[in-house]
Parts: sequence; structure tokens; C-alpha cells
Amino acid sequence: MVSVGVIMGSKSDWPTMKLATEILTEFDVKFEKKVVSAHRMPDEMFAYAKDAQKRGLQVIIAGAGGAAHLPGMVASQTTLPVIGVPIKSSTLNGLDSLLSIVQMPGGVPVATTAIGNAGAKNAGLLAVRILSLQDTSLVQKLENYHEKMRQMSVESGQELE
Amino acid sequence: MVSVGVIMGSKSDWPTMKLATEILTEFDVKFEKKVVSAHRMPDEMFAYAKDAQKRGLQVIIAGAGGAAHLPGMVASQTTLPVIGVPIKSSTLNGLDSLLSIVQMPGGVPVATTAIGNAGAKNAGLLAVRILSLQDTSLVQKLENYHEKMRQMSVESGQELE
Amino acid sequence: MVSVGVIMGSKSDWPTMKLATEILTEFDVKFEKKVVSAHRMPDEMFAYAKDAQKRGLQVIIAGAGGAAHLPGMVASQTTLPVIGVPIKSSTLNGLDSLLSIVQMPGGVPVATTAIGNAGAKNAGLLAVRILSLQDTSLVQKLENYHEKMRQMSVESGQELE
Amino acid sequence: MVSVGVIMGSKSDWPTMKLATEILTEFDVKFEKKVVSAHRMPDEMFAYAKDAQKRGLQVIIAGAGGAAHLPGMVASQTTLPVIGVPIKSSTLNGLDSLLSIVQMPGGVPVATTAIGNAGAKNAGLLAVRILSLQDTSLVQKLENYHEKMRQMSVESGQELE
Amino acid sequence: MVSVGVIMGSKSDWPTMKLATEILTEFDVKFEKKVVSAHRMPDEMFAYAKDAQKRGLQVIIAGAGGAAHLPGMVASQTTLPVIGVPIKSSTLNGLDSLLSIVQMPGGVPVATTAIGNAGAKNAGLLAVRILSLQDTSLVQKLENYHEKMRQMSVESGQELE
Amino acid sequence: MVSVGVIMGSKSDWPTMKLATEILTEFDVKFEKKVVSAHRMPDEMFAYAKDAQKRGLQVIIAGAGGAAHLPGMVASQTTLPVIGVPIKSSTLNGLDSLLSIVQMPGGVPVATTAIGNAGAKNAGLLAVRILSLQDTSLVQKLENYHEKMRQMSVESGQELE
Amino acid sequence: MVSVGVIMGSKSDWPTMKLATEILTEFDVKFEKKVVSAHRMPDEMFAYAKDAQKRGLQVIIAGAGGAAHLPGMVASQTTLPVIGVPIKSSTLNGLDSLLSIVQMPGGVPVATTAIGNAGAKNAGLLAVRILSLQDTSLVQKLENYHEKMRQMSVESGQELE
Amino acid sequence: MVSVGVIMGSKSDWPTMKLATEILTEFDVKFEKKVVSAHRMPDEMFAYAKDAQKRGLQVIIAGAGGAAHLPGMVASQTTLPVIGVPIKSSTLNGLDSLLSIVQMPGGVPVATTAIGNAGAKNAGLLAVRILSLQDTSLVQKLENYHEKMRQMSVESGQELE
Repeated sequence: MVSVGVIMGSKSDWPTMKLATEILTEFDVKFEKKVVSAHRMPDEMFAYAKDAQKRGLQVIIAGAGGAAHLPGMVASQTTLPVIGVPIKSSTLNGLDSLLSIVQMPGGVPVATTAIGNAGAKNAGLLAVRILSLQDTSLVQKLENYHEKMRQMSVESGQELE
Repeated sequence: MVSVGVIMGSKSDWPTMKLATEILTEFDVKFEKKVVSAHRMPDEMFAYAKDAQKRGLQVIIAGAGGAAHLPGMVASQTTLPVIGVPIKSSTLNGLDSLLSIVQMPGGVPVATTAIGNAGAKNAGLLAVRILSLQDTSLVQKLENYHEKMRQMSVESGQELE
Repeated sequence: MVSVGVIMGSKSDWPTMKLATEILTEFDVKFEKKVVSAHRMPDEMFAYAKDAQKRGLQVIIAGAGGAAHLPGMVASQTTLPVIGVPIKSSTLNGLDSLLSIVQMPGGVPVATTAIGNAGAKNAGLLAVRILSLQDTSLVQKLENYHEKMRQMSVESGQELE
Repeated sequence: MVSVGVIMGSKSDWPTMKLATEILTEFDVKFEKKVVSAHRMPDEMFAYAKDAQKRGLQVIIAGAGGAAHLPGMVASQTTLPVIGVPIKSSTLNGLDSLLSIVQMPGGVPVATTAIGNAGAKNAGLLAVRILSLQDTSLVQKLENYHEKMRQMSVESGQELE
Repeated sequence: MVSVGVIMGSKSDWPTMKLATEILTEFDVKFEKKVVSAHRMPDEMFAYAKDAQKRGLQVIIAGAGGAAHLPGMVASQTTLPVIGVPIKSSTLNGLDSLLSIVQMPGGVPVATTAIGNAGAKNAGLLAVRILSLQDTSLVQKLENYHEKMRQMSVESGQELE
Repeated sequence: MVSVGVIMGSKSDWPTMKLATEILTEFDVKFEKKVVSAHRMPDEMFAYAKDAQKRGLQVIIAGAGGAAHLPGMVASQTTLPVIGVPIKSSTLNGLDSLLSIVQMPGGVPVATTAIGNAGAKNAGLLAVRILSLQDTSLVQKLENYHEKMRQMSVESGQELE
Repeated sequence: MVSVGVIMGSKSDWPTMKLATEILTEFDVKFEKKVVSAHRMPDEMFAYAKDAQKRGLQVIIAGAGGAAHLPGMVASQTTLPVIGVPIKSSTLNGLDSLLSIVQMPGGVPVATTAIGNAGAKNAGLLAVRILSLQDTSLVQKLENYHEKMRQMSVESGQELE
Repeated sequence: MVSVGVIMGSKSDWPTMKLATEILTEFDVKFEKKVVSAHRMPDEMFAYAKDAQKRGLQVIIAGAGGAAHLPGMVASQTTLPVIGVPIKSSTLNGLDSLLSIVQMPGGVPVATTAIGNAGAKNAGLLAVRILSLQDTSLVQKLENYHEKMRQMSVESGQELE
């Protein structure tokens, strides 16, 4: 069953958001991916947010850039944890995206990650961490992932020396 | 008939948004004022935006702070001109509000004014300018307003000298 | 009759401001386009602003970059609604343009849009929204435009899936 | 059993972080609160992070200000979801705290919330959302909470009108 | 004969701009002070700028805040050196004022000083330096001023020790 | 006789600072150009600043980037007007250069221009304006320059139309 | 023998810089404190920097605000390690001070600490760390200091619980 | 014996950090270089920091980007002077790296240098200055280095003239 919904404001966000899905694939977490624009498809966005839990989703990852309203608006219509990924924007390098996503008023949380590629990758990992609370096999996989990261860092350092 | 809807994300925005309504009152423009929170009342917000034109509104002025989604989301659900007022926020002084409102993606415009009180006042004046295209009495009032501003500036300078 | 004046501080702003005119063309709104530099042609700028209404213009779209004074100065000399487009600048990415345009003092409003291309496009759309208050055919076209945007977003998402 | 660990870099962060614990109390979620300074108690921090899961914690909320390393360093030593709250700092208003927490490199996610009080409150709510995936009574409570927020917003608006 | 014109966008700028005039008084430089608002008195502003040289002014000091257009617009209408003082603004602390004044396009220079009080004081001193090129008594006074500053710094340090 | 000293912190600043000298050449103002690094040649810098007036210089134009100390330090050692040009830096786009130059404490003014090429060009023009107070032929040339700019703007607009 | 010179641009920096001297006192490190203004006492500043090593100083701590040139200019005239403390400024909260100090060009290093009080305290501690390389009693004191900080953090947390 | 440890969060930081090692090589200072990631190798990082002094290191240079925790965390586990180099990041140009490194709380100092290449070079020079307190041959070399820099600046200027 699909447990993570990966949505984005525009197809142009896909090269970034793909990194979230690659993590989910690596951890064998089922996901769906959709373009759900807050500003061009507001009704679909609300329908998506309202139905997400009934459809069995457990986490929503939402990427958006500029005046990035998608993560916060989705979070206002669901009780699922929503992870927001600020897409790097062409003019202000994603500072606008970051502030539009992270500075939510008290009451409606968005779990915000870094601007751009690192943020998308970490959105995938954060979803896995959340799901691992109910699935101990994911805990083991996360530990393996940390160990693999560690080894790759060590090896990259050995090449340096 | 009410021609301007003045909405805001929270009652705490009222001391700022009141300045917009004072301008509308000064120009004898009928308005309504409401709290319509994007994040706490999303369905009401959409209903408000979708019905605005049918109800005869001509301009919507929306004030919000922090991750300020109200102006842009309302603009996505109506064809009326929407004016966004960035409320000064407690942590980032309204820079977050400004970027969340002004950096809209192509397709859904928000007419953004300055952060805080000056922006609210100017939102009222911008609404009057828009309405004046259909109401030449407002053109005259705007010209009088400019003349009055001019005189007050001149007089304030005379006190200085 | 020409109803929108599209002006810019320099011919180098044209690749951005062209996007505003493409929207106007798409909506069959008549416009004129001019270079009117606040700093190099101040007298022409004032003459332009003062005559705009008499010449039948209804909305002015003004793009400028850096210490961008054109939109605000034009707004001080007319009662027409003035839309300001912050051009992306070479050093500060348009943050200077944005603040120079949006932070107007109370009394003289400028309807500011996003930095760069998205802002120019939205300036065109905002002008159409304003004109649609007097021209119901534009309301219909705007609704069609929204529906087309929606469909294009949906389709772009389907390609993704 | 305690399911949320609320930690902070300094006792001076408590007036902010208290808002996270008030939410947890409101939702009957058991929590512990501790000062765990990344820079003054690094070994305790690592021990805390490494033992958290074994001790049955499910979510860690970590608040810190300035060069805020606590949330990211804890996240590097556990597979639990870690929520970071940027404390408003005395010099840069929490922009330093925000960037130090949110801009994590790919591999180690921190779920970042807003600067200051709104962020602390939302950290509590995000923890509840995460826990609600395993506890349907929390889903119901979250829905009630949203409904209560909605009503309070509506009522605050009625006072305005 | 009056050789320096000290102008400002609003009477509320006077507590800052006063510091410029105190320097001029200290150096026995004749000046006039006026409120000349770019946005509320645009025609007076242009008239002021165009007549300044004929009236015998040698330097213009212009203070303004927010979207601060006064210094740049005056500079576009005169060949006199124009000194711009960014007034500290209530929302963005004068960063908006600074960028609106200093980021002038090539062709029309504004000699910009620091935000706020230090900038106003230095605007006075910069005017004196410029005038000293024609008046060697001012050179001597400037050297005395430097020596006095030096001694006051030395003495303030001696109190410290 | 050389009346303007154009100095810069590094030879790599020359492509920018050259624009200042081109203006001076265009106005037949004699200048010298030198690398005078505040940090690598501090004694030469002080000697340069202290001798400038005796050598007959009337204006100093100083360009520097990053932690740009050259303009302010030179200004502390001379009573001549000093114009500071913030060079665009590789990491922060010249925002560091700008703040390091413009935010001088009260007592020692630096006439700051825009970041990068526009600022260098305007530094040249500002020097000419200052010199024109003693040389009416420069006033005429400045008026011609303004008229030429105006015509070029008008013509560039005509190409557009 | 005095081993640390604590200098500052203005006596108004003393409430901040005092924190550096309190650390030095706590570690029994001899120091001198002086006002040495880069802009008001440039010759004294150079003399101070050039003589520092001969006089037996081992570390210089320099605090300055705004366009803060003192640390970098001193560093250009000595081979001693120079620690720069950005003083919180009244307009830009010390962001200007920070960038003016830290963004030094390659060749002349300044060891920069945090803006304001934390930075001054840490400047003292950094000086102690540097001196501890030659004085093992300082190593022991630093370890005790770390242990004391740890205990105070632990105790402050116990009060919380 | 190795006296400087040059560490970095990722192998991708090497092109920047290499400049620090080139300086050390030029001054005949022995160093080691390692990848020690705060987030991917936290235990190794702590072990490295805790053993550094025993292993005879005298200075640690640590480079990191984004939410750059390496320098501060290492400084919390050693009494050696730690120099932090903010790596230029892909989204925010290293402003995030700078603030994450420099804004350390009182108690744990990090000697921060400029963002990117200049900072890495200066980190090497700062290490040399610190070591020169115990090694007068390094004082001489630093003086030669300053003289060489001076001459190169002078010569680059002569080419210009």
C-alpha cells in the first residue's frame, strides 16, 4: 500500500523531488508522485489533502518554490505529518521558498527540510524515520544506511589522504 | 453595496488592517471586514474567494504575516484583483510575510504593498484607484487626497523652517 | 483604445517586460510599450504619468531594476493603479529592485509583483483582472485561463506519473 | 511511557520550548524535558541521542539558538524523527538559528519548524501528528483541535465585525 | 549665501537629519532645510532640484526612508553633487532605504552615507569636505575636527584605563 | 594637473574601476590610477592618503571588495572627499563590500555608490559633479551628458516601439 | 607580562568587550585595554599594531561595529593572531560588523567570533586557548572551565525538571 | 611532528580546503588532512577532537558548509584553538555556513574566517600566526610573506599604470 504521497507545485520541481523518491525506493517504501499546484489546482490540492488519510497515506512530502504555499495549505487540511521541501528559486535562491514554508503560524506544523536537493533527499529520509516507528525493519535499514554513509565518508577521506 | 472585502489571517492583524479600512471610509467606499485564516479556516477561505465576485465584491484586500498564504490562495480562487498586505512579523520583521506574498508564480497575481501600516494604508488607496476606473467621483477624491497630502507635507516643512 | 501602458526604465528590461505584453495580447487588451527612465528622462516620466489618464490609459505597468524609482514616481503623479515589476538585478538578484518598489510610504500605492519573469507575467494578469471589473468578457477569459492552467498542470503531472 | 523527549540547548530556551510541552500535555502525550547542550554537554548529548530509541522515545524535539547544532547532531545519532525549533536569537532574530538547523546536508534530516514561539508550538503538534499514525485517538484529538482553532478564528472575526 | 540644501521626505526624518545641520552649523556653512517629499510633492521636488544650482546651492543632502526615491530623483534633475542619507525604517531597519538610495543605475550618482544618525552626521561632513575644495578655511577646520575627534577618542580610552 | 586619484585594493578590481576612469576621460578630467591595498600595503595606503591633498588631488575614488576597508581608511587620513565603490564579491555578491564601505561611523564620511559597474561609473560622475563646482565648463559637459543619456534612452525606446 | 591587548573602536564598545576581559581575569591572563579607533586614531592604530609584538603581546582582541575596520587593519600590521569581535550595531544588528570583519581577503586573517556579548566572551576564551599552547596550566584551567560549564548546564536542567 | 589537523565535512570541500594546506606547506608546517563528517561520522569526530591534543596537534582547521556543525562540535571537545572555514554552499552562497560557524554561544569559541577560498587560505595563515608564538622562524617567514604580498601588490599596480 502506498504510504507516502510526494507532491510538488510544478513539474519543474521534479528534478529536485526525484531525490526524495529515490530514497523511498531505496528503503522499499511505497509512494505516489503527483503535481498538485496550490495556485493552479487549488481544489485538487484540497481534495488531495482531505482524502490522504482515508486513502491510507501516512506522510505527505510537498515541494514548492517562491511563494511556496503547497506544504502549509495541505497541512491545514490533514492531520498527517507534512514535510515541506523549499525548491531553489531562480531569483532569491530559495530563501523565499524556505520562509514561505517554515514560518507557519502556531497551529499548523510543516516539517521543513533544507533548500533544494539536500532537502528533498532528507524529506525522503524523514518520512522513513517516521514510518520506522511502526516498522522495525525500517529501523534496521536506517541503521544500515547510517553505517553506509559513515563508510563512504571514511573512504572518501582515505582517497584524500 | 459592499465593493471591497478586507480579510486578514488573524484578529491580531486588525491594528494594521484597520488602516486600510480607514482609507475606504474616508473615500466612502463600502467594505466588509472578516477574519479568514488560510490555515485555520481553509474551507471558509475557499468559499469566501469563490463567492466574492458573485456577491458583488470588486477588490479583495488580504493581510497576513509569517508564512502568509492568504492573499495568494484567495487569488487562486477568484478573478478579482487581490491586494496583499504583509503584516510585520515578530521574528523576521515581515520579510517572511513579504516574500510569501509577493513571490507568486506566474499565473496568479497578488498586488503586494509595503510591510505593515504603510502597506495597509496603501492597500486601501490602491483599491480606491482601481474602483475609480468606474467611478469618476473617486478620481476627484483621489486628486483632492493628493492635494491634501501635498499641503500637509508643505506645512510640516514650514513648521520645520 | 490603448488601456494599458507598459513602461520600463531601460530597454534592457524588455526581455522581462515582454512577458507582461504577451499576456495582454493573449487577452486582447490594447497596450503601448515605452522606455521611460525615471533617472534619464525625468521630465518625460512626469509628463507620461500626468497625461496617462487623459489619454485614456486605465492601468500602468512599470518595470525597473536596482534603485527602482519608476513605479513609485509614476504613481505619485497619477490616480491610475500602477503595477510595479522588480527587474532581477545583476548584483543583488532583484532584492534591491523589490524593496525600492514595494516599500512605498503611506499615501502612494504601487501594486508590486514578483521579481523577474513571473512578476512581469503576473503584472499583465493583474491588469487584466482590474480591467475585467468593467468588461465581463475578460472575466470569462480569466476563468478560461485558470482552467487552462489547471489542465496544463494536471497534464504535466500525468506525464510525471 | 514517555514518548517525546523535549530537549534544549540552554535553560533560557525554556520560555519558548514550554509551548511545545503545553501542546503535548493538551494531547495527553507523555514527555520528558531536559537541558542537553550540544556545546557544553557534548557527551551527554550523544548518550541521550544514542539511548533515545532504546528508552522508548519515539520523537525528539530539540530547540537551540544561534549556531544551533543540537537538533542536527542528535539526528546524526538516532534514527528517530528529530524536530528542530530555531530559538529567536538576540542579534540576528533567529535567522542564524533557522539556517543552522534547516540547512542540513543530505543524509541526516531535521524536521524544522518556525523561529520562536510558533515553532515550538508547532513542534509539539508535529510530534502529535507523527504519533497519531499509531494511535487513532490522537487523530480524533487533532481533528477536534483543528475544529477548535477554526471556531476560535471564526469567533475572533465575529468580535471584529 | 546658502550653499547646502538639506531636504528630507518627511518631517519625521528631522531628528536624524538634524545631525547633518549641526555639523554644517559647527563649520559655519550656510544651509537651508526643507521637507520635499518625492511622492507627496513631486512637482516641488523637481522644481527644487532644477533651481538648486541657479539659486547658488553647491551641495544637496537628501534624507529619505523605505522606498527612498528622493535622493536619486533630485540627482536626476541637477548636476550638483547629491548626498543621500538612508533613514532607519520601522520594518526593515533601513536596509530598504539604503538599497533604494545606493543602487542607482549608471549615469546618475548619489553619494550615499550610512543608515541613520551616523549617516546624517557624515552627510554634513561630506558636504564640508566638498566645499573645502574651494575654501581653504574649511580644510583647516576639518583638520581641527579630526584632531578633536582623535583627542576625544584618546581621552575616552584613558577613562577606560 | 591630476585632480582625481582612482585607487583599488587589487588589480582584479580594475575591470570594474576602469569604468570610473572612462568617465573621467570622457570629461577631460586628469586622473591617476593605482593599486593601493589596505591590507597588503597599509603603509603605502596611509602615505597615499596623507599626501593626496598636497599633491593637488581633489577627489579620491577607492574601490574594494569583501571586507572593504580601503575607502574608509583613506578617508580617515585626508580631508578630501572620498568616493567608495563596492566591488561585487564572489561569495556574497558585494553585499559585504557595500556594508563595509557605507556603514562608516559618524566622523569619517565615505560617499558610497552602487555595487559593481554602475557604482564605478557613477563614482566617476560624482567626481565630475564635485569638480564642476569650481569649473563651469564641467557643468556644461554634465548637462550635455544628461541630454545625451536622455536621447539614448528615448532612442532605445523608439527601437522597442 | 601583559600578553593580550584588548582594543576597541569606541568607548561605547566597552560593555561588550568587558566580557572578554572578564574571561582573561578568570584565567589569570594579563591584558591591557585601550580605545584604538581605526578611523579617528589611524596613526595610533598603526603604531599599536606595529609595536604589539615587540612589547610582548601575544594575542590582540579587537572589537568594532558598523563598517568595522579595526581588526583587519591591525592584522595587516602585525604577525600576531588577531581576534575580531563584531559589535552589535544599532541599525543592522551587527550583520554589517560581522561581514566587515570576517570577509577578509586572502593574506590577512582575522579570527572572527560571534556578534556581541557571546563573541566577546569567546574572544577571551580563544585567546586563552592560543596561550595554552605554551602554558599547560591554562590547558588544565580550560578543562576545568569546560567541566564547570557542563555542570552548570546539567544543574540548570535539573531545575527545569 | 604534525601540528595542524585540517579536517572537512565532505571530500567535496577539498578544493577549498586545499588552499589552507598549501599555505601550511609554504610555511613548512606539518599537517594532516582528513574527512571527518559531523553528521555522518559523529563518533569519529568526537574521537578526533578528544585525541587531538594528546596526539600533539596544536591547531585544528575545520571546514564545513550549509548547517556547518563540524567546527563548533570539535571545539566543544578540545581545548585547542579551532579555526572554522565556511564553505560556499550551493543555495545560500555560504551565508548559512558562516552563521552556523560564527554564531557560537558563549563558552566555546571558533575562530571563523571568510566564506570560501579566501577563508581557507586565511585559516592556514591564522594557524601559522598562532604557531609563530612558539617558533620565531615562523615570525620571520610571516614577515617575509607580508613583504612578498606587498611587492606583488605594488607590481600588479605597476602593470596597471
